[in-house]
Amino acid sequence: MRALAFDKALTFDPRRPEPIAGAGECLVRVHLAGICSTDIQITRGYMGYRGVLGHEFVGTVESGPEEWIHRRVACEINCVCGKCALCQAGLANHCRARTVLGIAGRDGAFADLVAVPVRNLHAVPDAISDEEAVFIEPAAAAWQVVKQVRIEPRTQMVVIGTGRLGLLVAQVIATHDCQLEVIGRNPKTLALCERRHLRATHVNDVARRNDRDVVVECTGSPDGLALALQLVRPRGTIVLKSTYAGTANVDLAPAVINEVTILGSRCGPFADAIASLARRELDVRSMISKVYPLERGVEAMAAAETPENVKVLLKINPR
Amino acid sequence: MRALAFDKALTFDPRRPEPIAGAGECLVRVHLAGICSTDIQITRGYMGYRGVLGHEFVGTVESGPEEWIHRRVACEINCVCGKCALCQAGLANHCRARTVLGIAGRDGAFADLVAVPVRNLHAVPDAISDEEAVFIEPAAAAWQVVKQVRIEPRTQMVVIGTGRLGLLVAQVIATHDCQLEVIGRNPKTLALCERRHLRATHVNDVARRNDRDVVVECTGSPDGLALALQLVRPRGTIVLKSTYAGTANVDLAPAVINEVTILGSRCGPFADAIASLARRELDVRSMISKVYPLERGVEAMAAAETPENVKVLLKINPR
Repeated sequence: MRALAFDKALTFDPRRPEPIAGAGECLVRVHLAGICSTDIQITRGYMGYRGVLGHEFVGTVESGPEEWIHRRVACEINCVCGKCALCQAGLANHCRARTVLGIAGRDGAFADLVAVPVRNLHAVPDAISDEEAVFIEPAAAAWQVVKQVRIEPRTQMVVIGTGRLGLLVAQVIATHDCQLEVIGRNPKTLALCERRHLRATHVNDVARRNDRDVVVECTGSPDGLALALQLVRPRGTIVLKSTYAGTANVDLAPAVINEVTILGSRCGPFADAIASLARRELDVRSMISKVYPLERGVEAMAAAETPENVKVLLKINPR
Repeated sequence: MRALAFDKALTFDPRRPEPIAGAGECLVRVHLAGICSTDIQITRGYMGYRGVLGHEFVGTVESGPEEWIHRRVACEINCVCGKCALCQAGLANHCRARTVLGIAGRDGAFADLVAVPVRNLHAVPDAISDEEAVFIEPAAAAWQVVKQVRIEPRTQMVVIGTGRLGLLVAQVIATHDCQLEVIGRNPKTLALCERRHLRATHVNDVARRNDRDVVVECTGSPDGLALALQLVRPRGTIVLKSTYAGTANVDLAPAVINEVTILGSRCGPFADAIASLARRELDVRSMISKVYPLERGVEAMAAAETPENVKVLLKINPR
């Protein structure tokens, strides 16, 4: 089969062996996949991963339990044991024995076929097109923010970063009653926010006054936390969504002095993401900048790194 | 009066003008004061502070409201407006207009006399000697940890750092029903822990398995957070107590991946600290390594920087 894989270098492989579904797994033929900043970070050494990239996708179940065959699905990316203390404690996404599609120990979805546990499947309703369905996984990650933080009408929420993830986080927060401001440096994506009636401010114009209740850090950059610490109020909350290869050089004294709560935030609830996309609460189509065929995956990854492009998709198989 | 002040350099000043008590303030004649890591960090540039150092002390009220005259007192260090939104919200320690004794905008207690707001005074009961009373302020900071974190019998708590603050935090946590381990690198202070029947482990012997519920970072070093991130379990909590001049170079990806909660923690409740010292729950006397007269304050500060010494005190006036 065809696949886009990383092993020291990023390569399109036209003849990679097809995956074999293990016990409790099925094979999904991938229609469309999205390039995430994590994919880019992996090519810079993040997670030390080698294998087929890709964890945001929509496809059709090709083999597996009869009730799933031919169904259009999105898939959770954490493949878990279901037995360890963390799984038993309801924290399956933190399973110690987990593999993660295209990120850790398991081939991902930038390929004709991907093997996934049946328990990870979510049916995609007809109301959601393929182009929208590739956003289910990152929209779920955005939903995780509102699951971790208490949001009330008077809560002053700030999202910093108007990249792929920041735009989703901002839109999900906007479906909750609160005061929301989005801060970014890219005029193009700031304009996207304004078109969605989100208050958007260029980072150079932001008063750093330690007066915001909650700051969600989605910059994907080591500088994001320092800015967040200048925005958040004493006893306020910073939600960290960015992961990147390497270290952040940050003065943490403001976190101690202002007794800030910093919450790491990763994967989130697929059910909420699917429901909000089906309700058309999130505008994801306007985030799609380019669509490449899988064969041009190396080029697509480079395109996803440039600020002109927001979301870059890989068209892999027809629906 | 005599004072130990920092202004580019640390100097003993035998003829510094006496402070003048402002409205709502009183003058306290200082008996004994403790040197804190924050004092040392200030001499390295932390907070950009210039003035008389010192914020851990016990003394006698010399002038002020009649009901306080001649009373032996410990003092809260945050001098607040009482009117701003944060004060009104019950977060007076975070008052935006605050000065902080010996740390920000207000002379401290390494001097014969210190001016403090009357509202900051706490009477020291007879059960607490001067040598113990100088620990009220840092013990309150230690108490803040148990106010911020939910501690239950099964909670696995780790304190990293067996310096001045770590030893207090460990002892305060030990008065709560939980599983406690103290991690340090100084054989002398690890032995102090064992004498208090606290489970103590050298940092080189620690399994970094991401399995502890709560890790309290008291190392005073930029490396502390990285170790804490290797110890804390997924969805666990790190309490940050360390402040220091400069930045930490840290890989924050584990905080995001494991969805860790990081809590900044600063000053704490004096009432709990006084009560626990009066109940003799904290052994602070064994932490006292050296006592210097104020005139030898520069030497005392140098002594407080060496690992052989835990707490170094300044004897300023007789009780």
